[in-house]
Amino acid sequence: MTDTLSSTEADIPLAEVLRGGRVESLHYGSVAIVDDTGRVVLSLGDTETPVYPRSTTKALQALPLVESGAADHYGLSDQELALACASHGGEPEHTAAARRMLEHTGRDETSLECGVHWPTNAAATRALAASGIEPRALHNNCSGKHAGFICTACAEHLDPTGYIAPDHPVMRRVTQTLAEMTGVPHTDANRGTDGCSIPTYAIPLRALALAFARFGTGKTLSADRSASADRLRKAVAAAPFMVSGTGGFDTLVMQELGTKAFTKIGAEGVLIASLPQSGLGIAIKCHDGALRGAEAAMASLLQCFGGTELAASPILQSLTRKELRNWNGIHVGEIRAASGLNKPR
Amino acid sequence: MTDTLSSTEADIPLAEVLRGGRVESLHYGSVAIVDDTGRVVLSLGDTETPVYPRSTTKALQALPLVESGAADHYGLSDQELALACASHGGEPEHTAAARRMLEHTGRDETSLECGVHWPTNAAATRALAASGIEPRALHNNCSGKHAGFICTACAEHLDPTGYIAPDHPVMRRVTQTLAEMTGVPHTDANRGTDGCSIPTYAIPLRALALAFARFGTGKTLSADRSASADRLRKAVAAAPFMVSGTGGFDTLVMQELGTKAFTKIGAEGVLIASLPQSGLGIAIKCHDGALRGAEAAMASLLQCFGGTELAASPILQSLTRKELRNWNGIHVGEIRAASGLNKPR
Repeated sequence: MTDTLSSTEADIPLAEVLRGGRVESLHYGSVAIVDDTGRVVLSLGDTETPVYPRSTTKALQALPLVESGAADHYGLSDQELALACASHGGEPEHTAAARRMLEHTGRDETSLECGVHWPTNAAATRALAASGIEPRALHNNCSGKHAGFICTACAEHLDPTGYIAPDHPVMRRVTQTLAEMTGVPHTDANRGTDGCSIPTYAIPLRALALAFARFGTGKTLSADRSASADRLRKAVAAAPFMVSGTGGFDTLVMQELGTKAFTKIGAEGVLIASLPQSGLGIAIKCHDGALRGAEAAMASLLQCFGGTELAASPILQSLTRKELRNWNGIHVGEIRAASGLNKPR
Repeated sequence: MTDTLSSTEADIPLAEVLRGGRVESLHYGSVAIVDDTGRVVLSLGDTETPVYPRSTTKALQALPLVESGAADHYGLSDQELALACASHGGEPEHTAAARRMLEHTGRDETSLECGVHWPTNAAATRALAASGIEPRALHNNCSGKHAGFICTACAEHLDPTGYIAPDHPVMRRVTQTLAEMTGVPHTDANRGTDGCSIPTYAIPLRALALAFARFGTGKTLSADRSASADRLRKAVAAAPFMVSGTGGFDTLVMQELGTKAFTKIGAEGVLIASLPQSGLGIAIKCHDGALRGAEAAMASLLQCFGGTELAASPILQSLTRKELRNWNGIHVGEIRAASGLNKPR
């Protein structure tokens, strides 16, 4: 396969990990910043070779939940809509919201096809273990997204069984939505399988950034889609804890910034943002798959491209340059965004 | 600071992560393979810029425990000596051995200065949480190394208090041993602080490989040091579970290969090996800090440079190319060593 990720001279430093005043580790990657008309505002590294966006597209995958009328049909709350866009930590608030979503349809967690894993939030895992309870599909970080797929199916009287397959009517609609938002084909040729078993389609970083520029402003979208995107963004801003949970990048950022920035992490170092006020979408791929590299870089880019308010944001400042302390609480180093990123261009 | 890690054209691919037939993520780094006379057998990427070896040097740091006579004085078992060289998982066998080491000196875990963290082994953390017990310093992955330092101090009637400081007599001896084994200075100028609060000194990868070539054969070492290294290698080969624990790279490799290969992981993507039969030491730094990249590369290098038996090793083959399955057990991809590594040179 020719269009596969490879190192190019254009790969750029995203972030560095320091210890004792030295760079101990380095993260390289690519960055695309695109406005809602498709104009490329910044392109660093390779932004055309397709990459898997993984969980960064969850909010796009949740658009059919709103557009189909399922969200209204079941009267989904902001918490529930935010959870449909989430890679949550499996904390009690998260599993409760996923359960409620399923209950709206008269179903329960046995309908979830995402698989089972212990909560990604370490404290939630320990609490679960302490209570003698084995994890269930509700704890899977994708359970809200999957509950959303089930709501979408049930509201239209479709059998949700097998909804994770590319050819299920719900997944076909989700895939069609992704193709429309990103403007690039989503076919068998660029399909991989995600951790939760639904398809993930490799697309250029530039296309991913465009999708989230559009998601942020609604420009070039139909009135219905624009309203649906707006509703999801507002739900996430109203309930940011649902998107990742305690200590999560997206939750930390949106708890402070509300509707001013929408961000979403994905596995293997992918991270997106929408900046509705400036009409920009940002997509980052850390080539080694490390989220810590993408997070520091994104915080820095949000400060640069998000206007004066984001430039002064305390949470973005703390995520741009994160102190590392060891098990005795001693300062040993830091993770910081690469210096080239934090200059306005 | 000029001698700091940076990307060079000579950085080489160590491993790649595939999904749906595409490279999803890539790991770059450097490799040094050196024989016990200091001859460089293979140098890929930058092997001269100092890197922190982190926990890869634990077996070298344990040499004073044997050389000082402390190991004999307390009659330390293979399990206990192996634990002194370990980054263990905090499993019950590990904490029990650390406790026994301290008991030999009439002390207990309150003498440990490594700090407290939950076991790195996920099942051990869940079991601890289920039993309602908070983690203690014994669960710190470095507790065996620290117990070794305390044994070294106590056998010589030194107060172990403050043994983590660079100027404590035990740590001075440890540092002197590292300088002798690697052949490069260990001073304030190249010192950082490790996760467990002892010093870690940035050194060229080539020097790290040399130290482990010597550690493997004893050549160029004093008779006493050679015997001490031999004893530690045999202890680890006899008790490989103590070095990392369930599912750990070092434990998996040495459970199969015994004394034929000594390996040790370190934080931030550093990994070393001794091949006593061929007289080689191998040191890898994955520049982004990912151990998964270093592990796949090391498995491949051990197959290439470890003779016919290692070339045919099932565990090395499985670690060179590791299948990735998702939460439903579906094959989604693999992590594999870069193809350039697995050719004999």
